[in-house]
Amino acid sequence: MLSIALPARGSRTLTQSLHGQLLAAIRSGRLAPGLRLPATRTLARHLGISRNSVIAAYEALAAEGHVAARTGSGHYVADAARAPARVTPDPARARERHLNAAHRGLAAPADMVDPPRAPFDFRLGVPDTSTLPFDAWRRLSARALRSMARDAPGYAGPAGQPALRAAIAAHASLTRAVACTADDVLVTAGAQQAFDLLARVLVTPGRTVVAVEDPGYPPTRAAFAAAGALIVPVPVDDQGLRVDLLPHDARIVCVTPSHQFPLGCVLSATRRRALLAFARRRGAVVVEDDYDGEFRFEQRPLDALQTLDDDAAVFYVGTFSKSLFPALRVGFAIAPAWARAALLLARQRADWHGNLHVQDTLAAFIAEGHLARHVRRMRGVYGERRRVLLAGIARDLGRWLAPVPGCAGLHVGTRAIVDIDLARVVERARAAGVNVDRSGRYAMGGDVGDGLLFGYGGIAGAAIPQALSTLKRAFARA
Amino acid sequence: MLSIALPARGSRTLTQSLHGQLLAAIRSGRLAPGLRLPATRTLARHLGISRNSVIAAYEALAAEGHVAARTGSGHYVADAARAPARVTPDPARARERHLNAAHRGLAAPADMVDPPRAPFDFRLGVPDTSTLPFDAWRRLSARALRSMARDAPGYAGPAGQPALRAAIAAHASLTRAVACTADDVLVTAGAQQAFDLLARVLVTPGRTVVAVEDPGYPPTRAAFAAAGALIVPVPVDDQGLRVDLLPHDARIVCVTPSHQFPLGCVLSATRRRALLAFARRRGAVVVEDDYDGEFRFEQRPLDALQTLDDDAAVFYVGTFSKSLFPALRVGFAIAPAWARAALLLARQRADWHGNLHVQDTLAAFIAEGHLARHVRRMRGVYGERRRVLLAGIARDLGRWLAPVPGCAGLHVGTRAIVDIDLARVVERARAAGVNVDRSGRYAMGGDVGDGLLFGYGGIAGAAIPQALSTLKRAFARA
Repeated sequence: MLSIALPARGSRTLTQSLHGQLLAAIRSGRLAPGLRLPATRTLARHLGISRNSVIAAYEALAAEGHVAARTGSGHYVADAARAPARVTPDPARARERHLNAAHRGLAAPADMVDPPRAPFDFRLGVPDTSTLPFDAWRRLSARALRSMARDAPGYAGPAGQPALRAAIAAHASLTRAVACTADDVLVTAGAQQAFDLLARVLVTPGRTVVAVEDPGYPPTRAAFAAAGALIVPVPVDDQGLRVDLLPHDARIVCVTPSHQFPLGCVLSATRRRALLAFARRRGAVVVEDDYDGEFRFEQRPLDALQTLDDDAAVFYVGTFSKSLFPALRVGFAIAPAWARAALLLARQRADWHGNLHVQDTLAAFIAEGHLARHVRRMRGVYGERRRVLLAGIARDLGRWLAPVPGCAGLHVGTRAIVDIDLARVVERARAAGVNVDRSGRYAMGGDVGDGLLFGYGGIAGAAIPQALSTLKRAFARA
Repeated sequence: MLSIALPARGSRTLTQSLHGQLLAAIRSGRLAPGLRLPATRTLARHLGISRNSVIAAYEALAAEGHVAARTGSGHYVADAARAPARVTPDPARARERHLNAAHRGLAAPADMVDPPRAPFDFRLGVPDTSTLPFDAWRRLSARALRSMARDAPGYAGPAGQPALRAAIAAHASLTRAVACTADDVLVTAGAQQAFDLLARVLVTPGRTVVAVEDPGYPPTRAAFAAAGALIVPVPVDDQGLRVDLLPHDARIVCVTPSHQFPLGCVLSATRRRALLAFARRRGAVVVEDDYDGEFRFEQRPLDALQTLDDDAAVFYVGTFSKSLFPALRVGFAIAPAWARAALLLARQRADWHGNLHVQDTLAAFIAEGHLARHVRRMRGVYGERRRVLLAGIARDLGRWLAPVPGCAGLHVGTRAIVDIDLARVVERARAAGVNVDRSGRYAMGGDVGDGLLFGYGGIAGAAIPQALSTLKRAFARA
């Protein structure tokens, strides 16, 4: 729950105060779009105030458009209330009323482009591309173009080029033991499009409850919220998603089992079985987001949920943004047969299909073994950085942070073990040239604690010790 | 209206017969998803039957999920009822109930990939790529890759690469006199994504009325229908869209003014002014789809609607699918300022942004003048084919077909001037090696007549006379 401080019971400003604090939480993004607010009865009991005060605060928020009431299922944070600041009304913008409610009154989000790099940069989600075999890519790119020049293709099918689908099926089988053939693969414009297409075909607006990890990956929940899903955050601990806390009416569960985003833990084998049992018992489906699971640093990884699933309940989503580079914008979904026609139709309506030259180049790149070699090489590089990082965190930051146990991916998550304002530490570190992220930024409103997140895709191993020393000074002065 | 043949008034099978004929029209796609059915009173009067019979037929269709009733606004063809054949139920597909109603029970559409080419191919929508300067493209592609290898980009903004936005603004100003700067341009994954994003930000599901041309381009209306729009078809004559027949409650008007798809006519200057006046008076916006307007064959083209608009009401959508090639999958929207933040947010949620290598290559290709030169050269090539085609149609097919007046684009539309079954002519022509399309296939249910459509992007000028002779024999035997 949010921490809410209220004036004495019976105070005339009680409703106003509650309203103000909820509004601030919504505007700041702590209460994210689509989030189901606590039932009025529950919140009243929790805060020790009358239910009527809570109802009055909710109604004021609803009247302002910040929350939406849905009959029989409570109050939800409205989509339009999202973090982007509202723009001052301007009569010349009268046309703006043509936008639907979810898109009115927004300023362009500020976080759309990666911020400038810092001298020591632990940012998340960027791979090291310095050893990418660009020569091979360029050669295969030129070859694919020559072939297109001979026989320029017209429009193609929305599933993706057959050669690329086959290459992805082989790659996913090899690196993640995902059981699939080329027919099961839908090539997408990055993992984000996979989430968007899944939301389009699975969500009934205003009805479908989608459980997401808290803290979790905001773009996934944004795609489902945009399709009208009711988003319910579920806590994460060191074993991953608290499957025991899934809401019974969840129809879709979004999860990052190999390397939880952002904490970095692994969904335990017990939880994996429990999640699939939940899906079977409750008739839910699972969206398995395996964004950087190719990079793992232990001998025996846990099977993907997709591998364990014998009930056609799991959608496996992968991407080449981490194993190659984000600007490629190629991802994929491995989907059960029952959903494939729907996904193809949704893709056709969304943008028909992807650029064929890019797909042909990537297919050849995988088929010639360049991707597998690059992943193998980078597994060594990242593994070494991870080792240096964990040792350094223990040495320099052990008084403040404890690493979350994990064994894969491109970043390490930690938890604060003392009461400290990490936002200030982050600010001070940035002024000293170190860019580091906080897990608290990815929370949906639950009291999920805070911690620092150390991406090692954008920092050389040799630079890590100095970065951590700098960070230590930022902590010491906090 | 549909032609409906009913048994005698009072017959006990009347409702059943009406239901069956409406169902057949829905399944075949003649009544398209999102279409508003005639009011029960109107249809009853039109058919000379009791209103109760019509209500009963509508209710049966609603119970089966083929139409949706919306309080106060009538009956609409449901999205799930779309042309793709329903698949025989299979117990193993029990999971299918997880799909939302719009996506349940579909087989993958058959028309997702271009059909094989015929010896004489008048297919629509494909440009001639034989003279594309692929060498220049390959050189610029390699250069863009080298630059990426030096400084691999992370995630970029959803609007597109700044250099490409600037190049598109210059290109659109030059070729179509569209008034814009780089800031106004949103790069999209083909024109289809532009329609999809516009639908996402402009449509309030179940409420927003979208007027489309009848006959018209099915993927545009599919994108709006998928977003929950109420689609209303509006007839087209030789002057383009019948602006006088626009429904008063239309909030969005989709139109192809330079070269109506599929008939090929031009929206007259009077109608252009009337459409913008309608938009101003009724508070509507216009989506101007200018898919092949760069190829025009008269001295003085009419201004784009976007150029004439002084009310921030027009979205101009362009594509490189015709001026370069469809597999590129790059299009763009030039949007009024009030909608830009919303479109960027929608794009970010949909797939973040496009492949940067493709965008950088295209930006350089335009900046170095290759696109302008190619368009100029192809204007000559297509103009000559068009001349040969129009002369040949007059000579060989003038007994059956009259060309629709037009002056731009990659195909000529015609209308049948005698009562003839063009579907059979098309079938017979195909057996003789000639592929030609029919405008009737693009109708939404209005009695819009039929005609043949002659694309000249995929056929050499020299082959046109023989193709028309073959077609003449197919007509003579009809």
